[in-house]
Amino acid sequence: MSARAGIVVTGTEVLTGRVSDRNGPWLAEQLRQTGVDVGFTVVVGDRPQDLVEALDFLAGARVDLVVTSGGLGPTADDLTAAVVGEWQGRPSATDERLEARITAIVERLSARRGWTFDPEAMAAGTAKQALVPHGAEVLEPTGTAPGLVVPGQDGDGHPPVVVLPGPPSELQGMWPAALASPLVTAALADRAELRQSTVRLWGTPEVAIAATLRRLGDGLEGLEVTTCLRGGELEVVTRYGSDLADRYDRFVEAVVQEHGAAVFSTDGSTVDDLVARALADRGLTIATAESCTAGLLAGRLTERAGSSAWVRGGAVVYSNEAKHHLVGVPTELIERVGAVSEEVAVALAEGARRELGADLGVGITGIAGPGGGSPEKPVGLVHLCVAGPDGRVQAAPVIPGDRSNVRARSVTVALHLVRELLDGDAPA
Amino acid sequence: MSARAGIVVTGTEVLTGRVSDRNGPWLAEQLRQTGVDVGFTVVVGDRPQDLVEALDFLAGARVDLVVTSGGLGPTADDLTAAVVGEWQGRPSATDERLEARITAIVERLSARRGWTFDPEAMAAGTAKQALVPHGAEVLEPTGTAPGLVVPGQDGDGHPPVVVLPGPPSELQGMWPAALASPLVTAALADRAELRQSTVRLWGTPEVAIAATLRRLGDGLEGLEVTTCLRGGELEVVTRYGSDLADRYDRFVEAVVQEHGAAVFSTDGSTVDDLVARALADRGLTIATAESCTAGLLAGRLTERAGSSAWVRGGAVVYSNEAKHHLVGVPTELIERVGAVSEEVAVALAEGARRELGADLGVGITGIAGPGGGSPEKPVGLVHLCVAGPDGRVQAAPVIPGDRSNVRARSVTVALHLVRELLDGDAPA
Repeated sequence: MSARAGIVVTGTEVLTGRVSDRNGPWLAEQLRQTGVDVGFTVVVGDRPQDLVEALDFLAGARVDLVVTSGGLGPTADDLTAAVVGEWQGRPSATDERLEARITAIVERLSARRGWTFDPEAMAAGTAKQALVPHGAEVLEPTGTAPGLVVPGQDGDGHPPVVVLPGPPSELQGMWPAALASPLVTAALADRAELRQSTVRLWGTPEVAIAATLRRLGDGLEGLEVTTCLRGGELEVVTRYGSDLADRYDRFVEAVVQEHGAAVFSTDGSTVDDLVARALADRGLTIATAESCTAGLLAGRLTERAGSSAWVRGGAVVYSNEAKHHLVGVPTELIERVGAVSEEVAVALAEGARRELGADLGVGITGIAGPGGGSPEKPVGLVHLCVAGPDGRVQAAPVIPGDRSNVRARSVTVALHLVRELLDGDAPA
Repeated sequence: MSARAGIVVTGTEVLTGRVSDRNGPWLAEQLRQTGVDVGFTVVVGDRPQDLVEALDFLAGARVDLVVTSGGLGPTADDLTAAVVGEWQGRPSATDERLEARITAIVERLSARRGWTFDPEAMAAGTAKQALVPHGAEVLEPTGTAPGLVVPGQDGDGHPPVVVLPGPPSELQGMWPAALASPLVTAALADRAELRQSTVRLWGTPEVAIAATLRRLGDGLEGLEVTTCLRGGELEVVTRYGSDLADRYDRFVEAVVQEHGAAVFSTDGSTVDDLVARALADRGLTIATAESCTAGLLAGRLTERAGSSAWVRGGAVVYSNEAKHHLVGVPTELIERVGAVSEEVAVALAEGARRELGADLGVGITGIAGPGGGSPEKPVGLVHLCVAGPDGRVQAAPVIPGDRSNVRARSVTVALHLVRELLDGDAPA
């Protein structure tokens, strides 16, 4: 049994959905990598009583460690440190040397960014951030807010609470110090290695994998298998103790045997990884011409550092004039077959290749909606083409969901077409 | 006191951070719009005991309604319906007419998408999805999985649980039926109007707003004010009963008085809204030339339906050749001052305007990192320019954080520059 943690994400802006939480998922992955199982992530607003109830819940669920994010700023609604201190029965007092360090940071930042404000206001905010519960460890600020590790009291059954700031870059910068804390190390002494491996399939319904899982039955004992369909990809993620590695390998063999062509990754690689690696390894370059996705494919292809070695650039061709002017799609072609058509997708892909001097070109044109659909060309219809020196691959799916879903899924389809062309296993 | 709900998001893929949760935030916003306050969102993995503990926690926190997402698929790890039924003390039985409807849906989908698989596997998956706890209301499938509203038992203190599927489009499609359910209507009878209003500032540190809040003190009583700094924007969101509307208006007046120039929105509009509205209202068009952001600005400008009226298109100019070829940046200029420079940002903006025939052009060139920095041009340095018929605005921030943050924040800075140029309040 490995050590178990709970995460509390604080912030009314997260709870109400105005800001999407990046910290919970990041912390869960970090904890997993150190062999700690995460049982729960609780999102609460900036209300002291709700935070206390979340802490009580996690203590009751007997987690070994709680990690909180957010609520360490200088404003009065940032109350995590005080509430956690009180929950652990530890009154807070000002740490004057910490206060001086925070003041120095804020002054340096203000000078650099040209902020000017009332010194009294600054002092009040800083004094609040320098309050430390009795017996807590201070984690040095990576922004302006310090973090804390606040231990429980003997016999109260409370786990230590790691209190981290909300801005993801500050939280991530502080994490190594939190892990190195003696209180944290002691709480997680009990961790065992828990592996996590992923198989990814493209173009297979979830129900088909369900059949495989059912058939294998007892052969899966001890493997925690979860399947998840997203953006058209089916992800099969398994967590297991290192003693069950052989059983996991046999499971993967069975999946590959039954769903061969659909399995595109058994080592955790994403389609983005595979495309980047194939382009880099073979010294090929790529360019895009996007209508309905309007730059999202280019944005995704360049997410990783070093992508300038294979991404030449792209054209966002929202208007028909742009299709013609940037990548040379003949205006008469658009007039004859319409902007959303197989022919225009091909012309975009070939135009991107030619105009940007790339080995591969990708063309995307579709109806993202909600308007613009017709019986022949419904909302969600997207024509895609990937052209290379030796041929082309194409697809014309009708993608369900809203505008945002159609655009995001189109990008994923395009990446799979690129992968197929590079694999050479696609119909010519 | 308004009715209060709790949300349970199920799925190991969400808990471990492989998939970012879209349902919790969406449900919270829907509930808010119907006057229901959300107290907690709990994320749990696909483990029955953890789901039960989350339900116990929310019942203990006395919420009036629980909404769950996920775990309704055909695979064995999808166990929400069974666990909720058991938790409510309601044994499940097959609803044969529902089973027939699901079978018809799966057959239609399979035919359309060309899926072929074992009929026995399909029958087993469908039979699982047609299990309904005794006394529960069925919500018709919007994908293949039906939803449920499962009531508690007299005297057990359990709220009704609305069980919804995990895919966001299915969940969203099913929501109106869930809200119309008599069990849900009864549970939420007690709702009161809770308003939520937002003020947005650009270029103001959080500590400055903290000073304003502190000074106003008792003048804020009954207003639940939260501040959140993200991507360089400071959001001040206030929730309050409709009887406190005057007090809220005075608060906004005070913020505008103290932070005038920085306040860009008091009616909830985002910078995206303001830019879209200004372009549409004045009949102006825009085009982009992006290097380090590589299409993300174009992608964001086209998020909303109808944006083809003002977005002409853009160029993703990752390579120097693309900068020259697509938008005519002189090669000798790049050689002389470097691709990341004020001069190239201007040339990109003017080139985008000219080549795409737009009224406004935006140029972005920077060092997203992690490599490529130097003492003179550090990682995070981004040169931006927005050019219009009557002049230009520019900025050259050094943006903190990782590659993804630098790219995302650059897009936000660009939108604010567009807004400033359109407002005419920027330095020429």
